[in-house]
Amino acid sequence: MVIKANNSNLTQLSPLELRHLIRKGDYTNQTSGLCAGYTQANLVILPKALAYDFLLFTQRNPRPCPVLEVSDVGSRKLVDFARDVDLANDFPKYRIYRNGKLASETTSIEDIWSNDLVSFIIGCSFSFESELLAAGIDVRNISEHVNVPMFNTNIKLKSAGVFHGNMVVSMRPIRDELVPTAVQVTANMPKVHGAPIQIGHPEEIGIRDLNHPDYGDTVTVKDGETPVFWPCGVTPQNVIMQTKPPLVITHAPGHMLVTDVINSTLKY
Amino acid sequence: MVIKANNSNLTQLSPLELRHLIRKGDYTNQTSGLCAGYTQANLVILPKALAYDFLLFTQRNPRPCPVLEVSDVGSRKLVDFARDVDLANDFPKYRIYRNGKLASETTSIEDIWSNDLVSFIIGCSFSFESELLAAGIDVRNISEHVNVPMFNTNIKLKSAGVFHGNMVVSMRPIRDELVPTAVQVTANMPKVHGAPIQIGHPEEIGIRDLNHPDYGDTVTVKDGETPVFWPCGVTPQNVIMQTKPPLVITHAPGHMLVTDVINSTLKY
Repeated sequence: MVIKANNSNLTQLSPLELRHLIRKGDYTNQTSGLCAGYTQANLVILPKALAYDFLLFTQRNPRPCPVLEVSDVGSRKLVDFARDVDLANDFPKYRIYRNGKLASETTSIEDIWSNDLVSFIIGCSFSFESELLAAGIDVRNISEHVNVPMFNTNIKLKSAGVFHGNMVVSMRPIRDELVPTAVQVTANMPKVHGAPIQIGHPEEIGIRDLNHPDYGDTVTVKDGETPVFWPCGVTPQNVIMQTKPPLVITHAPGHMLVTDVINSTLKY
Repeated sequence: MVIKANNSNLTQLSPLELRHLIRKGDYTNQTSGLCAGYTQANLVILPKALAYDFLLFTQRNPRPCPVLEVSDVGSRKLVDFARDVDLANDFPKYRIYRNGKLASETTSIEDIWSNDLVSFIIGCSFSFESELLAAGIDVRNISEHVNVPMFNTNIKLKSAGVFHGNMVVSMRPIRDELVPTAVQVTANMPKVHGAPIQIGHPEEIGIRDLNHPDYGDTVTVKDGETPVFWPCGVTPQNVIMQTKPPLVITHAPGHMLVTDVINSTLKY
């Protein structure tokens, strides 16, 4: 009998040990909090026919789309961010979109893998949240145990080929006197979205009501706190879906790749 | 009669005025020293069929290949680095390579332009040299009025599709006590190659004789100076030529695009 692992007895695993467990199908939960200090990453898999336009889109919009690594065409391996990796099995959960609509969720995409697929491994705010905590800043979505609130904005991105759209941002309330620190800490990590894109004026980027995020959950904004907005990794998925491509595969929200790279190496 | 301009009466021109002069064919010289403070850029033009592999190569090797902007397919315009620009006429001189061999030099590529060409605008060490000077560091190739010495190395780059090869580096001798400053100044400008890749040990990267550069000129290395090596923009051209593509167009050495972007905005 396979004992399904849970988060509480996994905290001591190395990224490689965790990936092996996930690969075997023995761990299918979210990865938040696992392998502390190691970079976790988002996934977008596209057919090669769309890969140039998407790579160019990320080059033109690195703040919301910080690409950490791109696989070779058809390859399920990485070189830089994880050595022993199987991109078709090492995320705990995948989402398969066909013609822009969610078709299914699965713990392995081995059966639908084909040699024309390209995997984009994209930086994630988990990396800078751990640095904010280390700087003594409360990260409200963590302390309230919910998903970070995310909002559509009026910030137009640079288009590339078939891809175009607006930026999605995440919001974290920061104590007024700590806002400069929050800027400094995150600006130092451009590969995981970098500095905020807006501080304290949601209406200027088209956000009407902080209590009604477009994605994720609501968090408390206390007196003496400023809402701070960062470019968000939901942006690339959002932009891709608008083009309704025949096939896109992503990680399921929160079900990330745990890489071998420690967060601090993503700093300048 | 058209009066051909020369460098001495051009120093007051804005980048746009200079590009207009170049576009009309009234200036065909090197751009070094013109429009002080503005970013100058390298050019690589490839057919779309090679653009994905090359864009991926630059994504995997940003130190020697810092892409500033990529044009849309077939477009002779830019969006970020210059507003009123004609990529087929705004470099003072171009080199046309066919099957990996230099076929001709020309001041306009309008007549061979085709709708499947993609232009890569690539950062150049001119930008960080002006910052080194501002930090009180003698840049020997400037003070000796020669081209910077460049060397092939044993530093293997990450391959991408058809593109693979080793890094080319440039060398600047730096007074021993100023080496940390030189590292700090250039590390702050990753879009123009960033920090040195090697300090003081040329043999470790496969360089045998500092007096025999593979490209450019020899410069004096004085007592009390350390040879410092930076990733060099000759790298992408070198790597492309090895694949002997049917058509590649580059700028002629030193004949750069003068952009509307000031160098200091390339800093973090």
